[in-house]
Amino acid sequence: MTTSKKESTASLVADWEALQRIFIRPEKDHGRQRLVKYMEQILFGLHDFLKEHVGITEDVSLQELSDRYMDSEINLLPSQKLADVIKGIIDNIAPHAVNVASPYFIGHMTSAIPFFMVHLHTIVAALNQNLVKLETSKVVSIWERQLLSKIHRLLFQKDTSFYADHIQNPSSTLGAFVEDGTLANLSAMWVARNRLFPNCDTFAGLEREGVGRALEVYKKKRAVILVSKMGHYSLSKAGGILGIGNDNVIRIPVTEHFQMDTHALEKQIHQLNSENAAIIAVIAIAGTTETGTIDPINDISHICKKYSLHFHVDAAWGGPTLLSDKYRSLLSGIEHADSVTVDGHKQLYMPMSCGMVYFKDPQAMDAVAYHSAYVNRPGSVDLGIRSIVGSRAATSLVLGNALEIMGKKGYALLIDHGIELAKEFATEIQKRELFELVSSPQLNILTYRVFPESIRKEWHTASFEQKQRLNENLNQLNLRLQRLQRQAGISFVSRTTIEKDQLKQVVLRSVLMNPMTNITIIREILDEQESIFVNHLKERSQQ
Amino acid sequence: MTTSKKESTASLVADWEALQRIFIRPEKDHGRQRLVKYMEQILFGLHDFLKEHVGITEDVSLQELSDRYMDSEINLLPSQKLADVIKGIIDNIAPHAVNVASPYFIGHMTSAIPFFMVHLHTIVAALNQNLVKLETSKVVSIWERQLLSKIHRLLFQKDTSFYADHIQNPSSTLGAFVEDGTLANLSAMWVARNRLFPNCDTFAGLEREGVGRALEVYKKKRAVILVSKMGHYSLSKAGGILGIGNDNVIRIPVTEHFQMDTHALEKQIHQLNSENAAIIAVIAIAGTTETGTIDPINDISHICKKYSLHFHVDAAWGGPTLLSDKYRSLLSGIEHADSVTVDGHKQLYMPMSCGMVYFKDPQAMDAVAYHSAYVNRPGSVDLGIRSIVGSRAATSLVLGNALEIMGKKGYALLIDHGIELAKEFATEIQKRELFELVSSPQLNILTYRVFPESIRKEWHTASFEQKQRLNENLNQLNLRLQRLQRQAGISFVSRTTIEKDQLKQVVLRSVLMNPMTNITIIREILDEQESIFVNHLKERSQQ
Repeated sequence: MTTSKKESTASLVADWEALQRIFIRPEKDHGRQRLVKYMEQILFGLHDFLKEHVGITEDVSLQELSDRYMDSEINLLPSQKLADVIKGIIDNIAPHAVNVASPYFIGHMTSAIPFFMVHLHTIVAALNQNLVKLETSKVVSIWERQLLSKIHRLLFQKDTSFYADHIQNPSSTLGAFVEDGTLANLSAMWVARNRLFPNCDTFAGLEREGVGRALEVYKKKRAVILVSKMGHYSLSKAGGILGIGNDNVIRIPVTEHFQMDTHALEKQIHQLNSENAAIIAVIAIAGTTETGTIDPINDISHICKKYSLHFHVDAAWGGPTLLSDKYRSLLSGIEHADSVTVDGHKQLYMPMSCGMVYFKDPQAMDAVAYHSAYVNRPGSVDLGIRSIVGSRAATSLVLGNALEIMGKKGYALLIDHGIELAKEFATEIQKRELFELVSSPQLNILTYRVFPESIRKEWHTASFEQKQRLNENLNQLNLRLQRLQRQAGISFVSRTTIEKDQLKQVVLRSVLMNPMTNITIIREILDEQESIFVNHLKERSQQ
Repeated sequence: MTTSKKESTASLVADWEALQRIFIRPEKDHGRQRLVKYMEQILFGLHDFLKEHVGITEDVSLQELSDRYMDSEINLLPSQKLADVIKGIIDNIAPHAVNVASPYFIGHMTSAIPFFMVHLHTIVAALNQNLVKLETSKVVSIWERQLLSKIHRLLFQKDTSFYADHIQNPSSTLGAFVEDGTLANLSAMWVARNRLFPNCDTFAGLEREGVGRALEVYKKKRAVILVSKMGHYSLSKAGGILGIGNDNVIRIPVTEHFQMDTHALEKQIHQLNSENAAIIAVIAIAGTTETGTIDPINDISHICKKYSLHFHVDAAWGGPTLLSDKYRSLLSGIEHADSVTVDGHKQLYMPMSCGMVYFKDPQAMDAVAYHSAYVNRPGSVDLGIRSIVGSRAATSLVLGNALEIMGKKGYALLIDHGIELAKEFATEIQKRELFELVSSPQLNILTYRVFPESIRKEWHTASFEQKQRLNENLNQLNLRLQRLQRQAGISFVSRTTIEKDQLKQVVLRSVLMNPMTNITIIREILDEQESIFVNHLKERSQQ
């Protein structure tokens, strides 16, 4: 879309005077009004495109879109004014972006956000503070510490005096903001790894000397992390990055309800102890990505206590359930965790992206402290001392103010709606002959699949080998159905593959977080799937 | 500031109807105009606080600010409307934040941004795409790939056919967006580490089996990274995180110009080879954080070629110098790098925060690929397959459109201004008796210190031991001066400690990136420092 603009002679910022102007917001009414007008276009021009349906349509194919963006040269001269850019985004980008705000978009953990989030996000850019250090953020660092303590308290429920001691104490770290849940999990495992291999007489600690020396000094064959088979792929990635190897992120089997099998966990711990392996952490998931399942947090916490193991809860998805009086008990036991991951851009309805990691022990992050001569000097209030990231935005201003605007109760309405709608959805699936519920919703995620009568009939009397063959047919059917629905561009349900009854099943996956999604829309989406089946897939499934 | 609000009975989003309303931007004029009005307040209400001076004043002490933010409880009910939040930020936060946009704020790598950046940042939130996968970003992923190729070409200067092959080829990865330079450097070292220890008959590769096994299988004593003493602390942190140990991020001595001593580098390589250590990467810095110095990139690239070593350039600061025809030769040789870090929120004048990492070889990032069943499936266009982070915002929309608005030439004006102003600044320092230039500017960063006549007299005839004592006095003096100037709140110059002539010298550090900063302002800042010296420090320095 930019090729023809190379010849543009626009001199927007190609001279010094023009350049200086763009660094000063105009003082005069006319100039001011223009900038405000642009904001109006952004707020409502984009809004007009974010219509009812989801728009992952293929009326412009991926190939065609790819062909449009093949320019590898930066223009020498300015080629567009801000007004052109905004128009270009409204005309050329928005129509081919994904309308994640659609109530018919129920396939991923990205959804509509309250409009005030856009305003809060704008404030972050306008202030442009850098939270790596006090000298580029001052009060915002202090403000962020308060917010960290609020979420810490939601998770760990320490008493008022605990927070009075730690909120603004520069030598305490209750948590940290990072880009997303992947980095939050990585941060937690980084801390746990270092704490398991601290310095001793002959060793300066793992962080200084590395994994090889640590295993040697502590006479361990390997270091492992334990998580259920439903754990997010970022946990394997963390094992890879941290140098313990992703094969050593060991997957514990799950029960038929997709929760960690705690007997299998304990058996695995015994096995590892007998093999002289070091266990860095056991991870419970509070809301698995694929099924929304919550592991038995209390049971796992007891096992961790028994064997003195670091207990991490990946609550990237489910953490905000704690804001609901009605459902917070689903996460009972999370207060025993040593560390917890929570995502802001998921069920806290923030714009992309915001991850957070919290530690029960305010000194835990000392295991990953770094100083330098020009910032983050020892004893300073600089938040960059204990953080996987350096420069970062004041994302906390978005979350903290959203909590003010919403209150616990506002968020609870969203949480409760999702969980209850998922239950209705499950009931609806069970009512319809074409579908089979694969995972019952514990939170607001459920999986199901098309399971036509023709196959169902054979299934009941089939041998395991026959079931494998039938399951393969079902997988192909569900895969095609999901693609056809996505291509139609009205609604979007995602798909994944999960293991159930020893079969790898391709399933349709729904995430119910948009408050505008209701049972009527769910029924429309299921109707559409039935119609796709009848019109496109039925014959094939009977072959 | 929130304690009194606990009793608030505002029912903003405490009921379902109110809640739903905030998810829909209003269709009616009245409601729309209110949202636009809020944007106006954000744009100009904050602007009115971001006045001329820097405002890291201590008229409200850190202690007093800390005392204000001691509330660890999330309110049950909504306690503020968006209008209150905006007013609260304007009244209570902005006045105690840091005016990084002030032309008198010349202490850190954070500065003024063009106003259109705020609009572009707003667009990112309004679209709320998630770049981890195509299903939540579609055209934006494709658009981002085009931008990655533009920056890749700026760095590596491959020909048009190379880009035609790779821009939109899902199996090629030219680079990746991450939160900041720290994570960009970490990503580059992650890739280099894995490529040095690939799989073989008896080994599944470092990423899968870990650092301990890798060293064992490849019969290496340790794995190291080489960088000059001026290297950013994030590089040591990368060594710690990646499990090789931060003691194994070996610091090569620098010349009197703070550039890596390439003889020392080659000597160190020989030494390491004789010790049977594995060298993961050699890092050249293009713009050190403390002095803005550029390492001899070409020489280092030749050494890397000679010994077949991964060559990384940390151009987080200096990378955008390539946009200037006048000064791009300062980075000559960067095209030989295997990987390069560039930051967007530094000299690309983006809002916080944006890091990028680029690889010459489009297959390099295959060494860190991760797949899962529900996204990032093999062969898909999902950008999350090769990325240290998972969910992330479409920050690329800000950078790509900024390049359209500015053109190379617009950015070149900024780059040239900074470099040339730094030269004038250096001349000014040399003219004034009170100061000593410590590092001459190669880019737009310089360091200097107060060096009063009383000490200067003794210095020339002093023994090294006497110089150590005098240097200690100078350090105290410069430390106090920097603090007093910061506290006064008119201007801000940072301080750091660098080693010169075998002495650890506390120096004043200036970063000249704000186009509104000019030599008149520089003179005012130096005048202020002279006056602080005369009024507060002179007597002490003579004791």
